[in-house]
Amino acid sequence: MTGPLRLQDVRDAARRLAGVAHWTPLITSRTLDARVGRRVRLKCENLQRMGAFKFRGAFNAISQLAPRQLERGVVAYSSGNHAQAVALACRQLGSTAVVVIPNDVAPAKRAAISGYGAEIVCYDRMTEDRAEICAQIAEQRGLAMVAPFEDLQVMAGQGTVALEMLHDEPDCDVLAVPVSGGGLIAGCAVAATALRRGIRIIGVEPSAGDDTRRSLVAGRRITIPVPLSIADGLRSQTPGELTFAINRRLLDDVVTVDDDEIVDAMRFAFERLKVVLEPSGAVGLAAVLAGRVAGNRIGVVLSGGNIDTDRFTRLIGGDQPSSK
Amino acid sequence: MTGPLRLQDVRDAARRLAGVAHWTPLITSRTLDARVGRRVRLKCENLQRMGAFKFRGAFNAISQLAPRQLERGVVAYSSGNHAQAVALACRQLGSTAVVVIPNDVAPAKRAAISGYGAEIVCYDRMTEDRAEICAQIAEQRGLAMVAPFEDLQVMAGQGTVALEMLHDEPDCDVLAVPVSGGGLIAGCAVAATALRRGIRIIGVEPSAGDDTRRSLVAGRRITIPVPLSIADGLRSQTPGELTFAINRRLLDDVVTVDDDEIVDAMRFAFERLKVVLEPSGAVGLAAVLAGRVAGNRIGVVLSGGNIDTDRFTRLIGGDQPSSK
Repeated sequence: MTGPLRLQDVRDAARRLAGVAHWTPLITSRTLDARVGRRVRLKCENLQRMGAFKFRGAFNAISQLAPRQLERGVVAYSSGNHAQAVALACRQLGSTAVVVIPNDVAPAKRAAISGYGAEIVCYDRMTEDRAEICAQIAEQRGLAMVAPFEDLQVMAGQGTVALEMLHDEPDCDVLAVPVSGGGLIAGCAVAATALRRGIRIIGVEPSAGDDTRRSLVAGRRITIPVPLSIADGLRSQTPGELTFAINRRLLDDVVTVDDDEIVDAMRFAFERLKVVLEPSGAVGLAAVLAGRVAGNRIGVVLSGGNIDTDRFTRLIGGDQPSSK
Repeated sequence: MTGPLRLQDVRDAARRLAGVAHWTPLITSRTLDARVGRRVRLKCENLQRMGAFKFRGAFNAISQLAPRQLERGVVAYSSGNHAQAVALACRQLGSTAVVVIPNDVAPAKRAAISGYGAEIVCYDRMTEDRAEICAQIAEQRGLAMVAPFEDLQVMAGQGTVALEMLHDEPDCDVLAVPVSGGGLIAGCAVAATALRRGIRIIGVEPSAGDDTRRSLVAGRRITIPVPLSIADGLRSQTPGELTFAINRRLLDDVVTVDDDEIVDAMRFAFERLKVVLEPSGAVGLAAVLAGRVAGNRIGVVLSGGNIDTDRFTRLIGGDQPSSK
């Protein structure tokens, strides 16, 4: 049993997203296959609209708001990509968005959010509670809050990633999926395990931000200090309640990668796959390259590519990664 | 009339390439569309096997050699990507390759060629005649020479790029295609003009290497000095005889882009499209961004992505481009 989120919800989301979100390509690399000795299929969500999988969930959730609520608008918090997704979905649906983002968000992401016409409110990642700020704005202005992962419709939208992967490559025996709050992997796990008996679902977290791995080991949601990792989209401190309820049932394992491995994966993606990955988007590939994902036919979600050339150059240049 | 190369040759090539070459994705960017005020579709040949369209032509030509010739092997000259293409096609077909490349070829390309198992022979771009060196080796060792563009089967294979584009997006009214020796655009022009009456075919060259543009203006093949451009794959000095015979009939125009515009296009591709382009692969996008391609529904060939992170970083970093 998959609980409150079902395959049908993901299929309904796919119907809403048809013609709005991209059906992203699933690419291959014989160099990669030869290097890891497995067949790997890479789902290019970096080529999704606004550069990450997040658009799928945000659009699916916001498109189901009442017309009157769409007129009032929505509010969301995010380390970057969910903010862009909400901003773009709102523009698409004729609504307006206020987004609450950390004050250290990459300039490219901030520019993109403004570009989509959203209002930006900043907070300090180290001292302030973004959920609280967001809730206050929602109440004061009568806005609907769109959570980045604690929302069944967001998860359903994000689960369409797995629907597409298994349509394009039906015989994947394992999926490797980045984990932050856990919405992407929860949606993918619900869809994939319903469609394909025996498929294994492996989460990937940065070593410094392994809250879901620890929580699965403990059997309950663990909270960790604010993670210091170059993977700025995966700095969650604790899994979501809804996502964890699904993930503790459906995930087979969570593996971790360190910052150097993430940079190596970004370089491999650039030079061999010819695609751009942000650090958070590269953890799945990093885990495969490091030999941490068992399986013969591995599907990997390349979850995002929002990084500007300046930061890419600094990271690939080889200085101390944690300072960037 | 299209002369010696016909749509059927391109269709035959597509049959041979099915399951061997990638059917590459045709991507879109609303940011790009909004910026240029046109609908643009980008054909990602940087995601092709070995990172460029060249594999299509090389495989199509080599696959038709007699078994005995395949046993002896082939020889080819190239500024880089054709060499990789021949090396990979030979490995794929159980043959062996000798490739003649300029001594200043990017390290990533050289490594890839060796990786595919080919023997490398270097020459000096400024003082030596690569075609002559290649012909000598062919004669001495009994190898079949696979020309980078002066070969109808190479052109036919490369024309499959346009077949795929017009299949995926039937209503393109113009194609913008990089031009070096002219094989890619000749193959594409034959296929596209046969499939779609009235479609316009625009070539794109680096400003410093506009031998085909000058030749079209003059009505005969013009030879220019060795071009100095960051687009190292487009440094041809004169159009091919076979390619020019086709291109003078089927091309509507050739436009040019300078090195700064190429770098801007590479940055745009990285930050907004999330794909990696080598300078030569970015000229079509550069021409569109510079407003030099008229039309409402523009198909652009992103022809290659073979650049390592070091060179990318130097180019994007903003130093004097011609020195890199």
